[in-house]
Formats: sequence, structure tokens, C-alpha cells
Amino acid sequence: MGENIGAAARAMQNFGLSDLRLIKPRDGWPNAKAETMAAGAFENMPAPKVFETINDAIADLHTVYATTAREHDQVKHIFTPDKAAEDAHENIANNKSVGFIFGAERTGLRSEEISLCQGIITIPTNPNFSSLNLGQSVLLVCYEWMKASNMQKARHLKTGDSTIATQEEIGHFLDRLMTDLDAGNFFRSEGLRPTMERNITNIFTRNELTEQEVRTLQGILSALRGNKTTHQ
Amino acid sequence: MGENIGAAARAMQNFGLSDLRLIKPRDGWPNAKAETMAAGAFENMPAPKVFETINDAIADLHTVYATTAREHDQVKHIFTPDKAAEDAHENIANNKSVGFIFGAERTGLRSEEISLCQGIITIPTNPNFSSLNLGQSVLLVCYEWMKASNMQKARHLKTGDSTIATQEEIGHFLDRLMTDLDAGNFFRSEGLRPTMERNITNIFTRNELTEQEVRTLQGILSALRGNKTTHQ
Repeated sequence: MGENIGAAARAMQNFGLSDLRLIKPRDGWPNAKAETMAAGAFENMPAPKVFETINDAIADLHTVYATTAREHDQVKHIFTPDKAAEDAHENIANNKSVGFIFGAERTGLRSEEISLCQGIITIPTNPNFSSLNLGQSVLLVCYEWMKASNMQKARHLKTGDSTIATQEEIGHFLDRLMTDLDAGNFFRSEGLRPTMERNITNIFTRNELTEQEVRTLQGILSALRGNKTTHQ
Repeated sequence: MGENIGAAARAMQNFGLSDLRLIKPRDGWPNAKAETMAAGAFENMPAPKVFETINDAIADLHTVYATTAREHDQVKHIFTPDKAAEDAHENIANNKSVGFIFGAERTGLRSEEISLCQGIITIPTNPNFSSLNLGQSVLLVCYEWMKASNMQKARHLKTGDSTIATQEEIGHFLDRLMTDLDAGNFFRSEGLRPTMERNITNIFTRNELTEQEVRTLQGILSALRGNKTTHQ
């Protein structure tokens, strides 16, 4: 289907791939529906190559992964998409050319086609609702491809221009807060005071507050105290 | 768009999720195009709940992840989908309810909406071709959710007898704080107010506050205000 070719091209471009090969496209090539679905992806990649047979399409490759809905009864390495992506990157690091093959929407890949491949990719899904369409399968494999390419930190705290506050800065704020709370008779029982102070301290230290945020908290205290002064 | 709701439902079912919440769906609800795109997914899940505001939609949740196309200029933990899925599973292992939020197709989430969330998910893509549609974003997050489903809990917050505060409890505290700050002339410029409110909100949402801590914060506000009253 033209739509699937467009969705595949878009997913490839999203995740940094550009060598698209088509094997006997049902709706012919080029295809207007593919253009629409691609949302501009074809403009950023070389023209797809069209082949008559799978053998021709993979002739120059060393390692080919066949994406299938179920584990076929063939003696073959079976990968989840993430493991296949890692394996593909290792192969490339060893000067091999790799490819990922996807079958047609309804029929998938035939057993003879799968037998040409070095590995099988199956995407784990809910067994009670497992149908992924072709575009979704391509998206997930391309996504894992890019993930395996990235060595970037997976989680970080974005702090903009501000840096994380030091213990001292947080300490100054907490000292002021405790003093103000004392003045407001917050600590009704001296026996409970140590626990309450510890609980309050935890609220503000568990977080990684930025310097700017500590200044904001200082401003909040001033505003709340200023409020008092105004009305005195 | 109805189509996006259907694609989201299908992706959720593919990867074992079923609690779909809609906030002011543009095309109304129920929706025929959603049914078509869902390819039967709705038959396997409870009826989606429809909400008027994001606050209502997340009121009973403890941890909410906002999926955004770019890193916003807010002090917030930023996750890739896999790390967010791990984090979400850890939170659930600690008896918290979690949610993933996605914005509308073109506009995404507004800054105020993002400030309500505990974390941001950005999906790493090719910087030269980064546009993912809503259905694709949901697919990738749901896929990572299922991948992370079997992970062991590696981090947990020790909360003692107290449970993590819900969004609603934190919201009540923030409402009171903003009112008190207003009374204290904290917001000197109306132009800066939205940014300042967002920054303050981020200080208290990035953390995982316990119910007890929110009560303590409420007590702090009362003490600081009471401080004022006492001296009047």
C-alpha cells in the first residue's frame, strides 16, 4: 500500500535512516498516497530503489533481519527490536551492511523470504490484541535503531541558566523559614519540634532545587512576612 | 482528532494499557473515526473518560508525565520514553497512580499544563526531521511501557505511613499559596505572573510530596499568615 510506504519513509527519517528499498510495490512507484503520508520525508532522502525480488533487494547486504508477527518455525536467531538494533550496530561496526525487511500489511513475509534472513525480529505485544500495522512496526524498529545509536544521557534535569543550589543556599533558606515559623507559633510542642523540623527540611532537600528556585522561595517568605508588616 | 484517539486506543491495547482519558476532545465523543482507527481496541477496554480540564483528568493521579516535542524551559525531570516507563513502573510498585499526557496534534501541551506534571518525556528523533504525529508518540510510549513491565523495582521513596499526595491535594495547596502571595504583593508585574506562577508550581510538583508533607506545607502557610494576624 502506498500509505505504508509513506509511513515507513517518515519513520525512517524520524530516526535517521534513509535507504528505503521497495520490492514489487502493489500500488506502483512513484505513488501519490505515499507522498502524502511521508509528510516531506522523501525530500530528505535518496529516491527509494525498486526491486523485483527480495533476493535482488538484499544482494549487497551482509545481515538482514526479517520482522514478523510471530516466531516462525525456523532455526533462526529471534530478536526483540532493541536487541536487533544493538546487533545491527555491532555488525556495522564490523564493516557489514545490514537491512530490515517488512512484509506486506496482511500477508507478512513468506517462509522462503524469511529463510534468506540472518535474524527474525518479533515485537512483543499484548497477546490478546497483537495486531500492529506495517507503519507501526517500521516505526518501532527505526526508533530502536536510533536509540541504539545514541549514547546520550537518558534522564537529566533541565535547569536552564540556573545551577543546582548548594547545601549552603538551601540551608540559609531553611534557617529563615524556621525562624519565621517560630515567630508564627508553628512549633506548638517543643517535644515535636525536632521531628517537624526534619520533615520540613526533607521537603526542600529531597528535590534538587536550583539557585533560582531558592531565590524564589526566599521571595515567597519575604512576601508572606511583608504581608504581615503591611498590616501592622 | 477522532483518528488520533482511535490510534491511541489501539496502541494502548497493543501494549497492555486500558485507562484512556480524553480532555475536551475536539471532535466530540463518542466518535466514528476513532472507532475505525481503533481496529477493535475499544471492545477490550473500559469506556474512555472525558474531562473538561487537565486538572480534573489528573486529579486522582500521583505522577504524571507530559510528552512534549521539545525540552521546555522548565525545571523538570526529562525522560526518554524507556526511562519514563521504568520510572512509572517504580512509582506503581510504590502504590502510586501514574499517567501519561499527550497534547493535541499541532499545538501540543501548553506550558501551564506541563508545569502540573512531575516529568517530561521527549522522544529522541532526527533533528532534521523530528515531527512525530500523536498516534506515533503514544505508540512509542506504550511500547516502552510494556518493555519495562517486568523490571524490578530499583528505587523507591520511603514514605513511612504517609502516602504520596494526589495532584488535587497539591493543587489545593498551590491555590492557597498563590492567593497569599497575591495578598503579599509578590507578583509585582502582571506580565511576569504566569512565568512566576509556573516556576513556583514546578518547585512543588517536581518533588513527590507525601500527603503529610502537603499538610505540613498548609500548616506553614497558616503559621506565616497567622503570624500576620497575631501582630495586627
